[in-house]
Amino acid sequence: MKIVVDAMGGDFAPEQIVKGTVDAVREYDVSVILCGDEEKVGALVRAEGGQGLPIEIVHAQEVIGMGEPPVTAVRRKKNSSIVVATRLVKEGKGDAVVSAGSTGAAMAAALFILGRIKGIDRPAIASIIPTVKGLTLLIDVGANATCTPENLYQFGMMGSIYAEKIMGIPTPRVGLLNIGEEEGKGNETVQEAYELLKNSALNFIGNVEGRDITAGKADVIVCEGFVGNVVLKFGEGLARDLLQMIKEEVKKDFLARLGAMLFFSRARGLRRRIDHREYGGAPLLGVDGVCIIAHGSSDRVAVKNAIRVAKECLENNVNGLIKETLMAVEQS
Amino acid sequence: MKIVVDAMGGDFAPEQIVKGTVDAVREYDVSVILCGDEEKVGALVRAEGGQGLPIEIVHAQEVIGMGEPPVTAVRRKKNSSIVVATRLVKEGKGDAVVSAGSTGAAMAAALFILGRIKGIDRPAIASIIPTVKGLTLLIDVGANATCTPENLYQFGMMGSIYAEKIMGIPTPRVGLLNIGEEEGKGNETVQEAYELLKNSALNFIGNVEGRDITAGKADVIVCEGFVGNVVLKFGEGLARDLLQMIKEEVKKDFLARLGAMLFFSRARGLRRRIDHREYGGAPLLGVDGVCIIAHGSSDRVAVKNAIRVAKECLENNVNGLIKETLMAVEQS
Repeated sequence: MKIVVDAMGGDFAPEQIVKGTVDAVREYDVSVILCGDEEKVGALVRAEGGQGLPIEIVHAQEVIGMGEPPVTAVRRKKNSSIVVATRLVKEGKGDAVVSAGSTGAAMAAALFILGRIKGIDRPAIASIIPTVKGLTLLIDVGANATCTPENLYQFGMMGSIYAEKIMGIPTPRVGLLNIGEEEGKGNETVQEAYELLKNSALNFIGNVEGRDITAGKADVIVCEGFVGNVVLKFGEGLARDLLQMIKEEVKKDFLARLGAMLFFSRARGLRRRIDHREYGGAPLLGVDGVCIIAHGSSDRVAVKNAIRVAKECLENNVNGLIKETLMAVEQS
Repeated sequence: MKIVVDAMGGDFAPEQIVKGTVDAVREYDVSVILCGDEEKVGALVRAEGGQGLPIEIVHAQEVIGMGEPPVTAVRRKKNSSIVVATRLVKEGKGDAVVSAGSTGAAMAAALFILGRIKGIDRPAIASIIPTVKGLTLLIDVGANATCTPENLYQFGMMGSIYAEKIMGIPTPRVGLLNIGEEEGKGNETVQEAYELLKNSALNFIGNVEGRDITAGKADVIVCEGFVGNVVLKFGEGLARDLLQMIKEEVKKDFLARLGAMLFFSRARGLRRRIDHREYGGAPLLGVDGVCIIAHGSSDRVAVKNAIRVAKECLENNVNGLIKETLMAVEQS
């Protein structure tokens, strides 16, 4: 199994990407192709003592920046690390692609080069959210601003397969994100999606509200990319700003500082649970190939885990199962 | 100035509603009409020593429950506390209505009985969110699942007046909630709303993302009710569940417990900042009358503050200013 990693994508690329790759190769039984500046990446691999490991480097001269318009950039920069990495998967030289670079560029490259799974109208990004009970998969978190009811049903189907095979949840409970619990709530799109989900083979539990997300009421929560993206970023911002507020408080008061230090030094379990690095990146489900989008701020731990997720998607044949489910639905 | 309070609406009605009312009458220079079960409410007022205070009771036999379909309930239960309360404002016997009961019922009553301000297509609920820099007004948080670009522009206008007059922010920065910062991001509705806001007299600062909400990047954040409702409830749920996770950690470890106790006992400023009771309820902007919707879980502090907010809306003539702005826009 060979994972192709975009060595140049991400806020801390290429250093943290290479470090995470070396860790992943050592820890999991995978080979990696690193795409990027041959010289820089090579030096970093050697600095990590990774010479003897199954790590290849494929040179890619260009990089697509976070601010570039993704579609144009992917079309023009044929030698960018993300385009070269994705092409290697298309050509069968690698089995999955992992990138912490521009989400839009990774998505555009996957769509243009790998294409969609036949029958899937819109691929979607699925993100894992920690809850009081475990983990929940929110899908879509930004691939599609606007969705049709059919898109939302397909997100539920793909999310359900992912939750079962990768997150280890048997018959995952699928919820539809809405502004009320009762059937008939929300806009037209979610009202129609409700019907589709209700009449599907999925374990659909009905509408869930914003307050149910971190309560772990559903294992898979389906929403339009606009809503999912706002929710995901709001959660990130809230965690960051709450920490900022705590820091301001402890500056003002010695005992508050002591208390916070004591609490955080002991509450390792909590830190681990809310640490997004543990979850290792979001799969772009529905493209014909495994594509894992890691957070832009990924460090070595996050990169290592993103490679693990790619490996698990391959081992558990997530895409094969999506195809089989589509065929079964078509024949029924 | 006379505020009409729905004594029967809310999880802790009528006890906490009456207590908060007595506090408000003592603290602020207002008279109150309490609508609800005359006997129960009267006994509670007396128990609080409120006999000599300017508090009237108007009997209302029925109550609209949280689970009832709002429109039907408001039409059928003519003697429910929220309908009676709103009618008193329409008849000029009171100046503003405050309710912690069913949001849908309060909204339906306001729309049917008070009507909309001429020129406002859709009233919207505005909710105050604490940020690292102060406070932000999120509008709409659930009155309208689907909105037109024109609706969103009007929310920005009404929110801007509210932020200036009630929150004391001169020339408030108005942001449009979107999934990217650049112009042209998002679905069609927000793209068109962007143009309307850009070409308006508002201090429009462009798109803001989910992660900017609690960072205080804008003073007023405009969004469809679907998105605003999900965000608001997600934030509430996240705060509740984070606290739950902290509680689980401190159960496991004595030193973590000691640290948390020490921190929370000292960090009063933080607790105050993130305590939604301090912000006292969300105005329903755009109806022809002052209508404040308090949180369902309101206790005496929240009710007192909701009455304060109603008073401030009246004193600062928020609705008059909305009408003037609409006339000025029409004439320009």
